[in-house]
Amino acid sequence: MKLALNTATVKLKWNLAQMIDGCVRHGIEGISPWRDQIAQMGLAQAKKSIRDNGLTVTGVCRGGFFADKDWKSDNLRAIEEAHELGSPALILVVGGMAPGTKDLSSWRKQVQDCIATILPEARKAGVALAIEPLHPMQVMRAAVNTLEQALDMCDALEPGGARGTPGVGVAVDAYHVWWDPKLKSQIARAGSRILGYHICDWLPQTRDLFTDRGMMGDGVIDLPLLRSWVEGAGYKGFQEVEIFSELDWWKRDPDEVLATCKARLAVC
Amino acid sequence: MKLALNTATVKLKWNLAQMIDGCVRHGIEGISPWRDQIAQMGLAQAKKSIRDNGLTVTGVCRGGFFADKDWKSDNLRAIEEAHELGSPALILVVGGMAPGTKDLSSWRKQVQDCIATILPEARKAGVALAIEPLHPMQVMRAAVNTLEQALDMCDALEPGGARGTPGVGVAVDAYHVWWDPKLKSQIARAGSRILGYHICDWLPQTRDLFTDRGMMGDGVIDLPLLRSWVEGAGYKGFQEVEIFSELDWWKRDPDEVLATCKARLAVC
Repeated sequence: MKLALNTATVKLKWNLAQMIDGCVRHGIEGISPWRDQIAQMGLAQAKKSIRDNGLTVTGVCRGGFFADKDWKSDNLRAIEEAHELGSPALILVVGGMAPGTKDLSSWRKQVQDCIATILPEARKAGVALAIEPLHPMQVMRAAVNTLEQALDMCDALEPGGARGTPGVGVAVDAYHVWWDPKLKSQIARAGSRILGYHICDWLPQTRDLFTDRGMMGDGVIDLPLLRSWVEGAGYKGFQEVEIFSELDWWKRDPDEVLATCKARLAVC
Repeated sequence: MKLALNTATVKLKWNLAQMIDGCVRHGIEGISPWRDQIAQMGLAQAKKSIRDNGLTVTGVCRGGFFADKDWKSDNLRAIEEAHELGSPALILVVGGMAPGTKDLSSWRKQVQDCIATILPEARKAGVALAIEPLHPMQVMRAAVNTLEQALDMCDALEPGGARGTPGVGVAVDAYHVWWDPKLKSQIARAGSRILGYHICDWLPQTRDLFTDRGMMGDGVIDLPLLRSWVEGAGYKGFQEVEIFSELDWWKRDPDEVLATCKARLAVC
């Protein structure tokens, strides 16, 4: 699998222009930019720079957050940006329950309705919606928390199943799903609905619920096994490294981070 | 439902004798002691004091940790202690993968084999083994992480199903399972396998993976809904409050903690 950089990995020290240069310098062929970074650079300039440097856009982060007041207009803009950048998918982090509410089940139904609302626009734009199940400890950020749940949602949204390129699918992030006893069978079920595969590692002594992800090889996830399942399901895309690490990697020289990512592909 | 105190809730400031007195003083009718506290008081004295004070033992914490070198002898001792105290169940926290290993699936199979090994002794002692699924963020402490997984394990261990009092079942802890999209159906499936029901709350801004649980009512778990599901499955036991809270409740006067637990039953 080719390597892509999810730009969150070096977001504290580099802007998007530097990230693009960094990918080229380190022979990383794919990039998945965040929207704030795209906005900062300007969409047209980002598009030109990514294309001129021969990078493949593997995803755009992120749509979703359906509890926000302007969720609909914001998601439509995100679809448009993903389309402009030639991204096959828009990553959806669906958001958590509104403050003061406890009805998780209703919120999950509402999330599905919101995705149904934007799905026709996504189809028109040729941008698939990639629901990303987040680790259950991050349920307040995203109430889709297992691959099975995400795929049930896909099936409800596209009852006919995914034929060819689906309009809605999933992003499989090793960090979020590795613990799941049903992971193998659900990855097999996902098949062509797998729109992205994200990697990093689970540190045995995790110190924070959001920003203490590990570099591949430093934790306990059997990444070659997961990759074999994802490949077995027919996925032919990139593996995209995405490391949130306030306590370690975000502090380091981004060139060291990218060089390490490349080197660690040997254990992925 | 009657209230029980899991003694972890006040473990920093009180010993078992004080916990027993505290339960009596606050009209809490059940207690689920930890084994280190039992050992400190002495098993015979603990048994006598709990009985003399009219408390019901709802569980003993804990067996499991099957990666420990002496897991078998230790679990057999735990069964014996639970039997002595008249506890209906021994809570199993199954343990995580051994350091340096990444084969989660094999480890889970091994856990099941270990439970199978001690199950005949538990049956002889009249103590049911309560597998407690732990939140996926605590997978390194316990590799059973969903109720469905725990129940699949129960079914494998007792293929005939649970008739009357099962030899192996589950402890349902709201904190560990509340996020699960399949929770309602799995609680219904569990039926008489539910050997304990633990409560506390999930704080929206959780600061620690292990010791930042909230007091009932301070978080986002719909506890009355969960209780209704557990009661609907036929559970007639206590609800047992278990709060790990290094940052808040463990610092407070235990009498304030117990008074608050009692008061908050109104929102459980």
